[in-house]
Amino acid sequence: MRRALQLAEKGRGWVSPNPLVGAVIVRDGQIVGEGYHAEFGGAHAEIVALRQAGDRARDSTLYVTLEPCCHYGKTPPCTDAIIRAGVRKVVVAGIDPNPLVNGKGLAALRRAGIEVEVVDTMPRAQRLNRGYFHWIRTGLPFVTLKAAITLDGKIATVTGSSKWITSEPARRLAHRLRAEHDAILVGRGTLAKDDPELTVRHVSGPNPIRILLDEDLGAVGASRAAQVGRADGKTLVLTAADPKLNAAAQELERAGIRVERVALREDGLLDMREAFGLLGRRGITSILVEGGSRVFTSLLCDGLVNELAIFLAPKICGTGLSLAGNLGIEEMDEAMRFVLQEVRRVGPDLFLRLVPAEAKE
Amino acid sequence: MRRALQLAEKGRGWVSPNPLVGAVIVRDGQIVGEGYHAEFGGAHAEIVALRQAGDRARDSTLYVTLEPCCHYGKTPPCTDAIIRAGVRKVVVAGIDPNPLVNGKGLAALRRAGIEVEVVDTMPRAQRLNRGYFHWIRTGLPFVTLKAAITLDGKIATVTGSSKWITSEPARRLAHRLRAEHDAILVGRGTLAKDDPELTVRHVSGPNPIRILLDEDLGAVGASRAAQVGRADGKTLVLTAADPKLNAAAQELERAGIRVERVALREDGLLDMREAFGLLGRRGITSILVEGGSRVFTSLLCDGLVNELAIFLAPKICGTGLSLAGNLGIEEMDEAMRFVLQEVRRVGPDLFLRLVPAEAKE
Repeated sequence: MRRALQLAEKGRGWVSPNPLVGAVIVRDGQIVGEGYHAEFGGAHAEIVALRQAGDRARDSTLYVTLEPCCHYGKTPPCTDAIIRAGVRKVVVAGIDPNPLVNGKGLAALRRAGIEVEVVDTMPRAQRLNRGYFHWIRTGLPFVTLKAAITLDGKIATVTGSSKWITSEPARRLAHRLRAEHDAILVGRGTLAKDDPELTVRHVSGPNPIRILLDEDLGAVGASRAAQVGRADGKTLVLTAADPKLNAAAQELERAGIRVERVALREDGLLDMREAFGLLGRRGITSILVEGGSRVFTSLLCDGLVNELAIFLAPKICGTGLSLAGNLGIEEMDEAMRFVLQEVRRVGPDLFLRLVPAEAKE
Repeated sequence: MRRALQLAEKGRGWVSPNPLVGAVIVRDGQIVGEGYHAEFGGAHAEIVALRQAGDRARDSTLYVTLEPCCHYGKTPPCTDAIIRAGVRKVVVAGIDPNPLVNGKGLAALRRAGIEVEVVDTMPRAQRLNRGYFHWIRTGLPFVTLKAAITLDGKIATVTGSSKWITSEPARRLAHRLRAEHDAILVGRGTLAKDDPELTVRHVSGPNPIRILLDEDLGAVGASRAAQVGRADGKTLVLTAADPKLNAAAQELERAGIRVERVALREDGLLDMREAFGLLGRRGITSILVEGGSRVFTSLLCDGLVNELAIFLAPKICGTGLSLAGNLGIEEMDEAMRFVLQEVRRVGPDLFLRLVPAEAKE
């Protein structure tokens, strides 16, 4: 199963909104076939492995990281192929929570006389598709808030200077995080101030979709992220549902940049719950939110953050721009609680992965 | 030598301004004597070990964590006793930087025909007496800045609430830090707001000297730290060198609380460089500074911090009181740099030990 999990990782960035899946077929203690789901719309992992195994799949054991599907989607049901190939036993590392599957795949295998075993206690298997699992369950993308901060919690100095808080190894890891999400999102402030390109560099991996928040469409036009979007068609702008913005929106769309409208709240920010619902319906299962403070504050307030990915630099900056603004917290025991999932040194810096305390992994 | 270092630790909190020292005497592969410097003015580690060994010290090897002294202080020179006992070889884990010793002890042993070996590469031996080493070299106490902060660098909420940022295990470790320093220091703000007792609780160990900054002697009188000081005589107040404060100072001193005067700077804060010089002359080799933000800011600005001991709670507080105020930093590349020496999980929290980058340990 470890090998199957390894294989599954290879599809990272290419299969969404499908889950990552890896499969290994073993007969007489020998691996006779292996495969992974390599791209959206392409063959499922089980099928790739079965093709490789050919006749040797008969009386074999199939290890697969997720329950095989039993419905017609982009491809025919995997369960049929498994049954036809004469597999004796199927071991899965998790049930597919997709209502079209969700135990029905295993039931179909059992009905055909195949022995089925579920090993759903592997943390690695649970982590593999947590974006997909969250999206299938809630309809919302899994949201990771990523920030580089100083020891005293600042994301920029008083003048707005933020280059560079962390070291090059930390920035490389940050690019790896980008490649692991379906989309990257930044707010209008970051767009105007840092003008990030929002592509994956320093590491190999696919470019995620770029999501730019621009309440009045005043910042996006000249941005680098829009420029890249004109070339690859992967930039999406979220703006206010205001007819006054129609002309500007049409101009962007003519240039190949998708514009989506969501309600503007009283505080002048876009309604992010509505926005994430919309993005979820568009098949975006995971989003890396890279800033700035205003977006972080709004998402934290609304409880829309599923994970924090914090790069902590051993520096003190003093007065400056804090990670989060006013969260309405007056007493320390009201502070938002998280649980440390991972602490790792990255060059001179620390990488911390945390999840909200109430959603302990 | 590991055993000798272990023994040395037992004197922690009791020997200052002397260094911590442990000694082990080995003959024919057997430990025949061991000792440590247990209290200021008491017998040195080597003497305790030699007494225990008696005649068995002849032709033995003495392992001692620091170069033996060769001068008359509170006790006669250890080198004489070592020579008299007929020790064959002495292994030391470091040279004593005290100008009265500083190689002279080893020279005396060599002159008497004793083989001498210096193993000065053990990090644990270097850490053991870093307060003493710093004090001997500079005349200033070794200053550790201790703070409990949220992930977003806050030491309190907007209303000043700070109880409790960290978990009980973290607070226990903080009390251990107290016991490992000669003194604890807090500023006037913390004194007035938190009114800490500044004693060692939750762990066993001696109470350090309490140092309270109180520019106008307006806060100290009614404080708990002063109350404890009236009982144990270990509370010291630093205030401005202003004749108007004479009456208040005399009243405190009559109650058993020592008052020292230092210059008041233009910004209304005490001159901490002068203060630390004075405390160094009083034999205080290490100070744990526990807050608040104003003291932290002033010490960081003046480059008077030798180490940071940070308890990081996995919480987000939003707007609030930051670890440090205005340090005059405009560009991120001017931020004060530190080097992570230790990263440890303590309950749900993280403990980070850092030293200034230019003073890499």
